[in-house]
Amino acid sequence: MNDSLTLFVDRYLPEIEQHLAAALPAPINGGERLREAMAYSLLNGGKRIRPILTLAAAQACGGIGSATWPAVVAVEYIHAYSLIHDDLPAMDDDDLRRGKPTCHIAFDEATAILAGDALQCSAFECLSKQAETLTMVAPLAKAAGARGMVVGQAVDLAAVAQQLSLEQLSHMHKHKTGALIEVSVQLGAMSAGASPAQLNALAEYANAIGLAFQVQDDILDVTADTQVLGKQQGADAANNKPTYVSLLGLEGAQQKAKQLVAQALVALEIFPDAHLLAAIAHYIVNREK
Amino acid sequence: MNDSLTLFVDRYLPEIEQHLAAALPAPINGGERLREAMAYSLLNGGKRIRPILTLAAAQACGGIGSATWPAVVAVEYIHAYSLIHDDLPAMDDDDLRRGKPTCHIAFDEATAILAGDALQCSAFECLSKQAETLTMVAPLAKAAGARGMVVGQAVDLAAVAQQLSLEQLSHMHKHKTGALIEVSVQLGAMSAGASPAQLNALAEYANAIGLAFQVQDDILDVTADTQVLGKQQGADAANNKPTYVSLLGLEGAQQKAKQLVAQALVALEIFPDAHLLAAIAHYIVNREK
Repeated sequence: MNDSLTLFVDRYLPEIEQHLAAALPAPINGGERLREAMAYSLLNGGKRIRPILTLAAAQACGGIGSATWPAVVAVEYIHAYSLIHDDLPAMDDDDLRRGKPTCHIAFDEATAILAGDALQCSAFECLSKQAETLTMVAPLAKAAGARGMVVGQAVDLAAVAQQLSLEQLSHMHKHKTGALIEVSVQLGAMSAGASPAQLNALAEYANAIGLAFQVQDDILDVTADTQVLGKQQGADAANNKPTYVSLLGLEGAQQKAKQLVAQALVALEIFPDAHLLAAIAHYIVNREK
Repeated sequence: MNDSLTLFVDRYLPEIEQHLAAALPAPINGGERLREAMAYSLLNGGKRIRPILTLAAAQACGGIGSATWPAVVAVEYIHAYSLIHDDLPAMDDDDLRRGKPTCHIAFDEATAILAGDALQCSAFECLSKQAETLTMVAPLAKAAGARGMVVGQAVDLAAVAQQLSLEQLSHMHKHKTGALIEVSVQLGAMSAGASPAQLNALAEYANAIGLAFQVQDDILDVTADTQVLGKQQGADAANNKPTYVSLLGLEGAQQKAKQLVAQALVALEIFPDAHLLAAIAHYIVNREK
């Protein structure tokens, strides 16, 4: 991370955590364990890349405002729910997430399913509380649903042990991780009253960094330590999953990541000041976990 | 069902089915199986009690309008998603639903989890398309989430093999099934521009029939044939689940159901014409499946 991004993250990370925790529904009688599971998976020291993107996009479009925070919460709640469900035995069957037992290991499978369900619901609830954020329900639902994140996961599961072309791999990631990254940027921009031209430019930026993020994930899966990564190194290869590294080789994947960052930076040129978004693009392909 | 309710259902059921099918997201490349699973669970000849309630509430408050249909779709999508997830092996582990294999049996567990996730998301997406229905996102999210339906399911799972008091059993059902029934009525009323007094009366009505619905379910679990029921008769008793019948006896439960219907009818007295809602209340405790 460069200095200004580090400062930005240091400045906002505590506030992000605060908003994420504050939006958890108060437990009702008998719902204590459910809420605990939601909190466990949500407040686990994640990198908060999506919230940071939302805030940085708002900043680039005029400034963080009161409508920005519900957007931050909503995208991270959707992300947290998707991780809980992805980790389930019937899906990726992961025991470890960010160095800690996954939700269904720490609690149980039924609670993990319900915690994910409730987090998705809370994401939309969070946007429903002010008129300004109500207009974000449509793009978030589009990005998270059967034509966005969920279908990406379905395509990913179907791809295990399949030979995918580069195009098919990109198609999968564009939905599985790209859609939510894009809408994180979009909602931040919307919260600051972005113009259509700004929204278009940011869609291009987000599309490029979304793919770059995945390419870097695939690179880290073969280069990083399990300990640094906080999840099983080599898990994709062991599961026989197609990756950018298996298709392009390690060097080819690294080059692809660089190209995508360059693309993202070009898209930012229309902004008077988008240095944070630019720094995030660099960070995404330079991170070590 | 009395004659006017039968006429109403005959008149609107095809339109309900049409709207439910039309709101399914078009499949994208690789998402065919996901969409098939969503359609399988959604379009399975369900009784559509919630959509009928939404339409009847709109009717009682001034008439079915263009904002009523997205409400119909949204409540039934939430219902369908909850059934898919409830049936999962880690939850109620049911193989049969309305006489057909459950979603995870007909497809697979991962697809069933994702189909449920996508249906929940689609429910909110459906409400996001017009300004009039956007205001329904908040009540639907409240009813469906960690202080509504989802926590009801969590409490239900925790209650297996527990001795529950009548109060605890009602608390569980009020969330597990009551919350969605209440919001089905509420959204119908909102779609017709109901007054606060009408909304209050309908909340009372819905609360009573929601419980009555569950009491009747418990009665049917011991009295109905598996074939008529479309699911395993005696399943609750076999799972050692507390029910109104186990707490009140069969006759006591039947009396309780009648009392709740009477309560519901009193709440309807402020309406010039709520004969359909009244007929639904009677139907709920007289149905045989």
